[in-house]
Amino acid sequence: MDAAARLACRARPASYPNPGVGCILVKDGMVVGRGWTAVGGRPHAEAAALDQAGKRAHGATAYVTLEPCAHRSERGPACSERLVDAGVARVVAGVEDPDPRTAGAGFARLRDAGISAELVHHPAAEASLAGYLMRAHTGRPHVTMKLAMTLDGCIATAGGESQWISGEVARAHVHSRRAIADAILVGGGTWRADRPRLDVRLPGLKDRGPQRVVLTRGIAPDGVKVINTPDQIAQLDALYLYIEAGANIAASFLKADLVDRLEIYRAPIVIGGGRGAVADVGLTKLEDAHDRWCQVERRQLGSDTFAAYSRTR
Amino acid sequence: MDAAARLACRARPASYPNPGVGCILVKDGMVVGRGWTAVGGRPHAEAAALDQAGKRAHGATAYVTLEPCAHRSERGPACSERLVDAGVARVVAGVEDPDPRTAGAGFARLRDAGISAELVHHPAAEASLAGYLMRAHTGRPHVTMKLAMTLDGCIATAGGESQWISGEVARAHVHSRRAIADAILVGGGTWRADRPRLDVRLPGLKDRGPQRVVLTRGIAPDGVKVINTPDQIAQLDALYLYIEAGANIAASFLKADLVDRLEIYRAPIVIGGGRGAVADVGLTKLEDAHDRWCQVERRQLGSDTFAAYSRTR
Repeated sequence: MDAAARLACRARPASYPNPGVGCILVKDGMVVGRGWTAVGGRPHAEAAALDQAGKRAHGATAYVTLEPCAHRSERGPACSERLVDAGVARVVAGVEDPDPRTAGAGFARLRDAGISAELVHHPAAEASLAGYLMRAHTGRPHVTMKLAMTLDGCIATAGGESQWISGEVARAHVHSRRAIADAILVGGGTWRADRPRLDVRLPGLKDRGPQRVVLTRGIAPDGVKVINTPDQIAQLDALYLYIEAGANIAASFLKADLVDRLEIYRAPIVIGGGRGAVADVGLTKLEDAHDRWCQVERRQLGSDTFAAYSRTR
Repeated sequence: MDAAARLACRARPASYPNPGVGCILVKDGMVVGRGWTAVGGRPHAEAAALDQAGKRAHGATAYVTLEPCAHRSERGPACSERLVDAGVARVVAGVEDPDPRTAGAGFARLRDAGISAELVHHPAAEASLAGYLMRAHTGRPHVTMKLAMTLDGCIATAGGESQWISGEVARAHVHSRRAIADAILVGGGTWRADRPRLDVRLPGLKDRGPQRVVLTRGIAPDGVKVINTPDQIAQLDALYLYIEAGANIAASFLKADLVDRLEIYRAPIVIGGGRGAVADVGLTKLEDAHDRWCQVERRQLGSDTFAAYSRTR
């Protein structure tokens, strides 16, 4: 299932609006087929893996990150049907599909055909579906917020100078994070001051243009969507939203508890008396700040450090 | 030499006022003696290693972090003489002794006796002698500054609440750092607000009481030394000074470029609009902040992260 979850990551974000799913078919201890959701959402991962396996799928076990779908569409038959038709012996899924058209009906279809179908609640499978599950359960995209700061938590000098705090390697890493987002959001202040391109300047990924969103009370420039409050992110066509936050945007999303993952780039410099990374979030008691974030990733990027924190819920 | 440098660390800080030195005697590929500077500075590391080796020192190689001393004192003969008398074949030293009574005279004494004496400029040996070398070259102690902050670089809420940002494991680690300092410094504001005990509350180390120093324009409380400006740290009886800094103390020492090592404890919490870790240091151009700090250590302490940075000079 870990391997299937890694495969699923290849689907992100091109599978949008469908979730990125991974599927591995194993027979007699050998992998006979692998698939992940294709660009635009079809074929599904199971269909791709079955196509690869051909007749070898007969009697195989399918490991799939999400419950196989139960609904036919004009774009093809349901995956649960295809698995039945291929004669697989067993299906192991990492997460039940919250889509009301499936929601257990995929498992039921398999079991009706005499196939063993198991749900294992696998953490890596769940993580690979974070955007889809967040949208299904809360009606909004999964939100990653990026902050780039100094050792003393500054995002600019007192005079406002901020280019550059992070080094080149860290900035390239930001572009790789943009590349897997469906939408990127900045605040109106950043938009007006820097006119950031918010594109993906990485070899081979220049056609990845996530939707650009500005949170402001002002008017939308061409090609940019505007929202006025953090909770309007629910209106975005996106499973994964990436926020490049100044201090006020950071505070408004944190205050609304709309951040699922914090990604912090720290440059080994000290500014002293500079502009802080996060504005007032209305905290009155220190103890209320505890037990909300858990470090889940850490890497060195040139002389900068990258650390990611998950919101514990 | 790496092993000798690790041995040398056992001497700190009890060897004060002498530097903490490590010595290993190797003969025919076997370690025949190990020593480090004793409490109060005598016996020296070489004497301790020779005492342990006895006759096996004859023909051995001595790896010693600092050039063997050339000066007799009423507390015993010079180490270079003792190495000659023991009949060692070769001496490898990591750092030349800047003490004018030795400063090459130790090597000369060994070579006069037909012993091969090499200086290797070993980084770990140098690091283990950081306080001694800083005092000899600049007339002041080596300065480590501790900062405990949140992910967004705050050391307190806007209302001033700061207990506790770090967790228990991190706080115990601070006590272990106090234990290897000769002196601990806080600012007058912290002193008056918290009356910190600045002691070492760790099992087996409760008798380690580093000298307590307050930087203030006010009057000294009993048992506490007062200095009025950062550069007065030169007057302290200390090779290693540990600063537990609030924002103003941090800024004044950084502005004076008197910090050799930054130790940052980061708790996985966000305060937002709280009190920043470092007050104004007079920085006007961002580029002047770069290339001053290099991360040299990192560890997880419970849910907090510890990172140490060396001043690149």
